[in-house]
Amino acid sequence: MTPAAIISKKRDGGRLSKEEIIFFIDGFTQGKISDGQMAALSMAIFFQSMTDEETAYFTEAMLRSGATLQRTSSSLPRVGKHSTGGLGDKTSLVLAPLLACCDLLIPKLSGRGLGITGGTLDKLESIPGYRTNLSEVEISKQLDAIGCVITGATESIVPADRKLYELRDVTGTVPSIPLITSSIMSKKLAESLDALVLDVKYGSGAFMATREQAEKLAASLVGTGRNMGVATEAVLSDMNQPLGEMVGNACEVNEAMAVLRGEGPSEVADLVIELCSRLLLMTKSVASLGDAKKVLWGKLTGGFAYEKFLKMVAAQGGKLSDAGLETASPVTVTSLHSGRIIAIDGQKLGEAVIQLGGGRRFKGEKIDHSVGLKMHARIDDQVLEGETLLEVLAPADRANTVVPYLQTAFTIVS
Amino acid sequence: MTPAAIISKKRDGGRLSKEEIIFFIDGFTQGKISDGQMAALSMAIFFQSMTDEETAYFTEAMLRSGATLQRTSSSLPRVGKHSTGGLGDKTSLVLAPLLACCDLLIPKLSGRGLGITGGTLDKLESIPGYRTNLSEVEISKQLDAIGCVITGATESIVPADRKLYELRDVTGTVPSIPLITSSIMSKKLAESLDALVLDVKYGSGAFMATREQAEKLAASLVGTGRNMGVATEAVLSDMNQPLGEMVGNACEVNEAMAVLRGEGPSEVADLVIELCSRLLLMTKSVASLGDAKKVLWGKLTGGFAYEKFLKMVAAQGGKLSDAGLETASPVTVTSLHSGRIIAIDGQKLGEAVIQLGGGRRFKGEKIDHSVGLKMHARIDDQVLEGETLLEVLAPADRANTVVPYLQTAFTIVS
Repeated sequence: MTPAAIISKKRDGGRLSKEEIIFFIDGFTQGKISDGQMAALSMAIFFQSMTDEETAYFTEAMLRSGATLQRTSSSLPRVGKHSTGGLGDKTSLVLAPLLACCDLLIPKLSGRGLGITGGTLDKLESIPGYRTNLSEVEISKQLDAIGCVITGATESIVPADRKLYELRDVTGTVPSIPLITSSIMSKKLAESLDALVLDVKYGSGAFMATREQAEKLAASLVGTGRNMGVATEAVLSDMNQPLGEMVGNACEVNEAMAVLRGEGPSEVADLVIELCSRLLLMTKSVASLGDAKKVLWGKLTGGFAYEKFLKMVAAQGGKLSDAGLETASPVTVTSLHSGRIIAIDGQKLGEAVIQLGGGRRFKGEKIDHSVGLKMHARIDDQVLEGETLLEVLAPADRANTVVPYLQTAFTIVS
Repeated sequence: MTPAAIISKKRDGGRLSKEEIIFFIDGFTQGKISDGQMAALSMAIFFQSMTDEETAYFTEAMLRSGATLQRTSSSLPRVGKHSTGGLGDKTSLVLAPLLACCDLLIPKLSGRGLGITGGTLDKLESIPGYRTNLSEVEISKQLDAIGCVITGATESIVPADRKLYELRDVTGTVPSIPLITSSIMSKKLAESLDALVLDVKYGSGAFMATREQAEKLAASLVGTGRNMGVATEAVLSDMNQPLGEMVGNACEVNEAMAVLRGEGPSEVADLVIELCSRLLLMTKSVASLGDAKKVLWGKLTGGFAYEKFLKMVAAQGGKLSDAGLETASPVTVTSLHSGRIIAIDGQKLGEAVIQLGGGRRFKGEKIDHSVGLKMHARIDDQVLEGETLLEVLAPADRANTVVPYLQTAFTIVS
């Protein structure tokens, strides 16, 4: 068993065995297998793909490269959610406290934004004092006390993925469904879950541009989760325009708070309820999807989910009042034409947020949590020339630099 | 222009520009582009291939990574030959002095054997004192004095190829025709040639198992040479059994000496004459292939080529008498059946030579020049049970360990 022989086997379309995959990932993590060999294997996988079984072995080998969260003494089911990322996606902020109200444990390890899609940790860090670097002991303690945690992954979680992702990023080997799958699933399964729901987004504001691509990725994620013994389902969701009205950091926290109180845009609540219902059913917490929806709406409208959110924020050091967070003053972007909106370019909206300082182009860049966008118009809306399409939340000098660019994000036909 | 963007372009089937290829090879040679990136590009090239034009740019960029041999003040045409390697291939030893007798300059940079095919340098080092590490000044001087040199490439010749070849060897990216082409051609063109002939071998004892593969490689090599302004032709030759009777090092020198005197197996002389004729025609040294053959046979049978060989050997420090080199005593391998030989497994013959100590498995291994094989039977021969198939030239204890294995190399049908 040599690295070159394993690479050649995959290159020629062969199926790798569990032993070969473990040998390769372990060797790579320990530095015995070189970056060159791992890059060559990744490119061979891009072309020849992997079966669900191979992908599960690959995921397991990655997962084994580091620590996983310890299960606590609680007998409540542990559940997780992962979104492939999209504009205005604040579902995690609502979903975690909502599920904690339903006697589920949500030990959520989230990430930061890079490129056009935001990150849950960045959003939560808009809250003064909120800590995203809890230790494993702190995570367990908070989980037992409150039922939900949203924090960053510790250094010891899936080190192979960090190393591999950095390599893939510079070697043109990112867009491979089995490699994306094993990267996502190894990190999620490090949460030691009983059930997992995946929110796979497609459209102009998502990683997967088409529904077909999203379906393939969803099938691969679900197959791998199940192969690894975790109840797993996927929901496909439309990301041809932002989810909800707000895109940014502080402004998305405010919108999430509204949804947690049973207010806010219904499409955000609808998606959260859909994702949560699947988890309630998978963990047999309810008898039917209908029951699940009833229970969940009750937790929102009764104020329980909101109260849980405030508890989680306080437990992690955050200082938040009912008034929410301050955001920058709005600058209005108006339509140049009258007509119907047939498309909104999510890439451009995301680019504008980065330009305003609300996102990052490079790992480690500082961001300005107060900036963002507030959408007024949606696809299929009829607008008049001069009508407001959206507001830019940012100091006027910065906001004005992106206004003409944002106008080009809307395709309007008369 | 980023490395990842260039890799992704090739991955998706794009054609790389000259600038992109130079950027990549230069960056790799200078250590700015990582092994991981080069391995990923190599694997993408394995799958998506390169056009003749891209391959020529790639070759040129490799060639530019180091020094090339200086042309001397002589106005005689400089010519070269490259063989893709095969069992018993001693053509270079005959070809170089023979061409030098025809007023051509042959500055031949040869390699060592690795795996089942031998290397010209190893064969010449069977001659006591023969130096294969001439400096560039020594090469030029000898070329002007005698017309031919066979030595190793200096460290400064095509460093990119050494680095890339080592990487390809451990990353499963060896069998790519454009990469094989640029590796071969960059080294040959570093000889600063006017004309080049390629001996592309196919069959059980060659790198390319089938004639179709050999044809593809030949077309790629010829296209690249011509794209780079060097008159280039290829000859396809059969390597389903060893070329000539001898396989080894010292024993092949002895056979080459016989051919140089107009004796020895006709198939060796025939191939040498074929390759040399192409070079005489390409350099307009003769008017026709018929003329070329007449001239070349005259140089062999008149003793001129042999005399030139002795001069070259002496100039490079070698001590050689007309009696040739001493080889180990023979152990006979006989046929287990009566019948017709329909196939000879070259891989097995080559493996046996390595086993005897006459070849190497790892770079830098010492070899025993005195061992080898002397073939008695050829494909289509009728043999009787107990008849000699070949002799093993090696001390009896070593020879006996390979005898049963060698018997399995012959497929005999009754």
